[in-house]
Amino acid sequence: MEGPASPAPAPGALPYYVAFSQLLGLTVVAMTGAWLGMYRGGIAWESALQFNVHPLCMVIGLVFLQGDALLVYRVFRNEAKRTTKVLHGLLHVFAFVIALVGLVAVFEHHRKKGYADLYSLHSWCGILVFALFFAQWLVGFSFFLFPGASFSLRSRYRPQHVFFGAAIFLLSVATALLGLKEALLFELGATPQPRRTKYSTFEPEGVLANVLGLLLAAFATVVLYILTRADWKRPLQAEEQALSMDFKTLTEGDSPSSQ
Amino acid sequence: MEGPASPAPAPGALPYYVAFSQLLGLTVVAMTGAWLGMYRGGIAWESALQFNVHPLCMVIGLVFLQGDALLVYRVFRNEAKRTTKVLHGLLHVFAFVIALVGLVAVFEHHRKKGYADLYSLHSWCGILVFALFFAQWLVGFSFFLFPGASFSLRSRYRPQHVFFGAAIFLLSVATALLGLKEALLFELGATPQPRRTKYSTFEPEGVLANVLGLLLAAFATVVLYILTRADWKRPLQAEEQALSMDFKTLTEGDSPSSQ
Repeated sequence: MEGPASPAPAPGALPYYVAFSQLLGLTVVAMTGAWLGMYRGGIAWESALQFNVHPLCMVIGLVFLQGDALLVYRVFRNEAKRTTKVLHGLLHVFAFVIALVGLVAVFEHHRKKGYADLYSLHSWCGILVFALFFAQWLVGFSFFLFPGASFSLRSRYRPQHVFFGAAIFLLSVATALLGLKEALLFELGATPQPRRTKYSTFEPEGVLANVLGLLLAAFATVVLYILTRADWKRPLQAEEQALSMDFKTLTEGDSPSSQ
Repeated sequence: MEGPASPAPAPGALPYYVAFSQLLGLTVVAMTGAWLGMYRGGIAWESALQFNVHPLCMVIGLVFLQGDALLVYRVFRNEAKRTTKVLHGLLHVFAFVIALVGLVAVFEHHRKKGYADLYSLHSWCGILVFALFFAQWLVGFSFFLFPGASFSLRSRYRPQHVFFGAAIFLLSVATALLGLKEALLFELGATPQPRRTKYSTFEPEGVLANVLGLLLAAFATVVLYILTRADWKRPLQAEEQALSMDFKTLTEGDSPSSQ
């Protein structure tokens, strides 16, 4: 009574949720661009505007693309597993490269302006995200795409990979929220006694950025919802199911305890 | 081949993970107290220190207690379901009451100082957390503790309740991180050109607060890990299993499609 082996139609509501996630994701990217364009002078590499490359790249790479990379197994339900895996891995490569450009942008901006690096909670979380993302990709690649790993090893690592993938995505979104807050307070608000700052008098930029923050959280929630709904998981394909049953018989034969 | 019906021992590693989560949770509470005591003058209701009640109450209520409330079904595996439910509901009540004190503290502080309310992303997220938390509690109570709801209704709502419970917990932690960042930038750092601020020169308070932020994220991760590990889910008790099997036979008899 596991998933059916023949090409099965996607569960009724799944496409609507996926469409909604994409609408949210694209809105978040567009709104980040609008914020930088309308209130921060736009984007350029060779000028003081270089900083603005940072939030845009991070939102495209570590929020939108990373989120979509997680959804690949829910969207491509009946394609060969290997194709879906390669797409999942590739989307993460794109996400990483774009995020790397964003990372270079902020370090160069700091260097040109003489600002200190890596002192804030946002930057600590960001570096942690980068390290975890890279490690997760390497381990994922060597277990699932490199031909060496055995079926048993893969099955045991798989739940860990899924959990940490989701956790790194959530930490990325939280880091984006911290960065957004930092960018707002640097420009609009923080004085030791913030009785009346631009932020506290509901300047349009502050309101726009707050809405952007809520939409970032909403995108993460919808992606997580699609990912965790048990009846939306990718069904096993015919040949995977055969393998999995062989494996079950094998392991249940030689060791009855599951831990 | 679902969970066993007789009292089963907890899975081997679970107690260690639970212990680790508690160690992290208590460290986070203690460190919040230490931060407020060492760098913010301590806590008092009738003075300018009233603000400090806010972060402490929120960390105790919406982070530590809410996290522990989610773990109740993993820790109390063989107790009667109803007892565990009541404990789960009660812990949420405690969390809510403590958070309410924290909410009153910050509004009173703003009123006394003449600060604007509810303009920041932190405050918007916080109000959203409160509204969702309250709604989730009410719906959870009326479905699971109030005797009216049918078994079928409960089974259908259960996964939604679990997902949104975890989502609200994560949003609470993200809101705490935003608040921490705000408190740091108001005091230590935000000038329009932050070339050398107290925050950027690694003042001890900033480093302490950054570590606190990372520990908050670590607590959320460990709680989520315990919650989502499939083989750590609470096994069905004998009488629950009988009910569940009856229900399965019944529903599979009258409608073969699962959606």
